[in-house]
Amino acid sequence: MESESTFIAWLRDRLPPHSALRLGPGDDAAVLAWATADDVVVTVDMLMDGVDFELADVDPRRAGRKALAVNLSDLAAMAAQPVAALVALALPRHGGLALAQSLYEGLLPLAERFGVALAGGDTNSWDGPLVISITAIGRPRNGRVWKRSGARPGDVLLVTGQLGGSILGKHLDFTPRVEEALALAERYEIHAAMDISDGLALDLSRLTDESRCGAVVDVTSIPIAPAAVELAAQRRDGVTPLDHALADGEDFELLLAAEPSVAERILAEQVLSGRFGVPITAIGQFVAEPRLWQRDAAGEVSRLAPRGYEHRLD
Amino acid sequence: MESESTFIAWLRDRLPPHSALRLGPGDDAAVLAWATADDVVVTVDMLMDGVDFELADVDPRRAGRKALAVNLSDLAAMAAQPVAALVALALPRHGGLALAQSLYEGLLPLAERFGVALAGGDTNSWDGPLVISITAIGRPRNGRVWKRSGARPGDVLLVTGQLGGSILGKHLDFTPRVEEALALAERYEIHAAMDISDGLALDLSRLTDESRCGAVVDVTSIPIAPAAVELAAQRRDGVTPLDHALADGEDFELLLAAEPSVAERILAEQVLSGRFGVPITAIGQFVAEPRLWQRDAAGEVSRLAPRGYEHRLD
Repeated sequence: MESESTFIAWLRDRLPPHSALRLGPGDDAAVLAWATADDVVVTVDMLMDGVDFELADVDPRRAGRKALAVNLSDLAAMAAQPVAALVALALPRHGGLALAQSLYEGLLPLAERFGVALAGGDTNSWDGPLVISITAIGRPRNGRVWKRSGARPGDVLLVTGQLGGSILGKHLDFTPRVEEALALAERYEIHAAMDISDGLALDLSRLTDESRCGAVVDVTSIPIAPAAVELAAQRRDGVTPLDHALADGEDFELLLAAEPSVAERILAEQVLSGRFGVPITAIGQFVAEPRLWQRDAAGEVSRLAPRGYEHRLD
Repeated sequence: MESESTFIAWLRDRLPPHSALRLGPGDDAAVLAWATADDVVVTVDMLMDGVDFELADVDPRRAGRKALAVNLSDLAAMAAQPVAALVALALPRHGGLALAQSLYEGLLPLAERFGVALAGGDTNSWDGPLVISITAIGRPRNGRVWKRSGARPGDVLLVTGQLGGSILGKHLDFTPRVEEALALAERYEIHAAMDISDGLALDLSRLTDESRCGAVVDVTSIPIAPAAVELAAQRRDGVTPLDHALADGEDFELLLAAEPSVAERILAEQVLSGRFGVPITAIGQFVAEPRLWQRDAAGEVSRLAPRGYEHRLD
């Protein structure tokens, strides 16, 4: 029988020092040195066994890593530099300590890679399945954040990486686009951004709703992931690789809006410099007319339904 | 069938404006205006149905209120002014939307009373029981926080309110000692503080461990709550009201360390001014000798076991 204090002691031994962490785990709250009058960017995501991963099939280190990565993806979507995270766990009673340690073994390397201080948490056990709730805290890279609401008609729609088929593995092992977001925020004026967590079409519809405009997607330009092709081949259910790229959840790539001259520079300079870890592709334009539209290979424009993963509440 | 977006729209309608909330729920993260170089104080607590409350017996508004209150108690223990909170929910599939609304109906008035901006959250449903994870963010009242580690031999041990028997109702409906903490931090030098969440004796032992000292508790001075008397009478199991006051969890009162002259002023001025919502009582002294001790009515000193609620991990 071990206690939460034993676990906190184990954890304290493994936490590298961090300049932002004035007071870390072990008190009633953590204290982050902020040092400037910058805004504080905060986000939370809760992942549950059986919904966001299946502990029966997945190494818990990958689950722990994912729980932090989805939060870093949200910070990236705001162009915020990650600073700290808090980890709350509901652990199954049996084997909870070992499970907690595995979760942390998965998330600690990711935290270190992106400079995230593990500032604290809450470790519980119960008769239910594993629940991980992580709060991430960041700082705007250039004094201001990217919002969903800034896209303007005429802006080019850009996307990082490739889309679709994430369920085959990427949803656990993706790299949050923090470095890309910060590099873009440093050099270019981005009008709006968000990360794709519920599907390109659905998330794009949220971005256009917040921006009070619409968008035309050039479906022939969408970078389709090999996993989307593989998933379509595996399932043989008539869902095409393009459908997967348009509607699969958990891509965790970034959607960006920038005016054409800026988009051109981004696209040209990534080739010249190899600046970003992933390719950035132009896949459409924002338009004044609300709603989503798709342009096919023949240039025909038709409505695009905002398909994707809707979180349902009964 | 409703979706998370419907719920967020419902919530946005109910959120009062807040000067610290530059960007609230609905984007990938929330943005808090910080405006000064003050530190950021952060804490998280996760509450689970069947562990921290029983939804079968309790109005969900009280559960929602409790989930925020325990976090505000942690901020109070740091002398931090609450600024914002993030709410992550795992809701049972059936009736999840109505449950989420009730939880918020319980926590919104408490948020408003203490000036807390609801900055965002994550709303999920699943086949498991309700889980509520709240992150609270605050700002040190006077530029610096109270820690557990500052108590010195010779300091007086003070406690707010009355202790024991919280399970009879206070654990759901307690008032976090935010106003008391901020008023104390404004006027007096407090060396160390924490809130009592797992029992006076156990939490005091954590405070003395962090402060590398010990403490003698005058057990005759402990303010025993009427609920502790009632619980002892109900249970007739030989556990006395004093035992309940020493070891019951979830009092959510504050333990404070202050040097004798300061403690005297606090005790005198609370009588003169009626400044605090609850009485503050001196219940012992910090000593150089490690560990906890108790002094009984006859002046005899013996060891005091650090009893309370230990969070177990198997």
